[in-house]
Amino acid sequence: MNDEITVLDFSQIKIGMEKKFRIVVTEYMLESFANLSGDYNPLHMNENYATNTSFRKRICHGMLLSSFLSRLVGMYLPGQNALYISQSLKFHSPCFVNDKITIIGKVVSKSESTHIITLKTIIVNESGNCLVDGEAKVLLRE
Amino acid sequence: MNDEITVLDFSQIKIGMEKKFRIVVTEYMLESFANLSGDYNPLHMNENYATNTSFRKRICHGMLLSSFLSRLVGMYLPGQNALYISQSLKFHSPCFVNDKITIIGKVVSKSESTHIITLKTIIVNESGNCLVDGEAKVLLRE
Repeated sequence: MNDEITVLDFSQIKIGMEKKFRIVVTEYMLESFANLSGDYNPLHMNENYATNTSFRKRICHGMLLSSFLSRLVGMYLPGQNALYISQSLKFHSPCFVNDKITIIGKVVSKSESTHIITLKTIIVNESGNCLVDGEAKVLLRE
Repeated sequence: MNDEITVLDFSQIKIGMEKKFRIVVTEYMLESFANLSGDYNPLHMNENYATNTSFRKRICHGMLLSSFLSRLVGMYLPGQNALYISQSLKFHSPCFVNDKITIIGKVVSKSESTHIITLKTIIVNESGNCLVDGEAKVLLRE
């Protein structure tokens, strides 16, 4: 996937610039994330347990969804020259296995003095429900 | 690893309660995270590229480090009854392959009305440098 990477420098970043991409969340992704992070909470990993919660089925780890923001920043907006400074995350609605989600980033400000850009970040499902929103700050490396 | 999970209810959470654990960051983890997230930024994945940056070698994805906060919350503090509400993340210093890092969470407040607890979250390396800090809000499910 290296050939997909965007290479924007600070001068090319415009306020209002937007990038979005879609992902289908798979059971394999939940298992990979559990193995990587060590988070085997049964709400994410145990169908029987999850059935008896208010969610009725396993929900995706919030931090797995957030990992797609790493792709947003590191691959597309701004892509290669990115250095992640900060990210805020609010987990609003559950994401289930097989949900089709859209990851969206939009440039809301840029600082000429620091070369840090601010993105509004949102992840929504097919019904248009906001799953995760927040703000990313990214330094454009020289 | 399911047998390690902590099961605390809201009444058992005390302000000042702390949990920490250690991880050795491996090249395999960077590759797994890149495959899962789709973030193949060369600063993380290409040794030749990274050598020519100010970091001199590949650095770990900030969101990979943050995935260990999912484990902190979902497995240990509070563990099974956790529902992640929000997380803030500031990426302060680089983490390199083979770094031994410590993930720390400390309860700083709890709300009797909402059953939401607030954790101060920090990830440090062996030199004591703060790599990532922030704040987590977690609902204790019934």
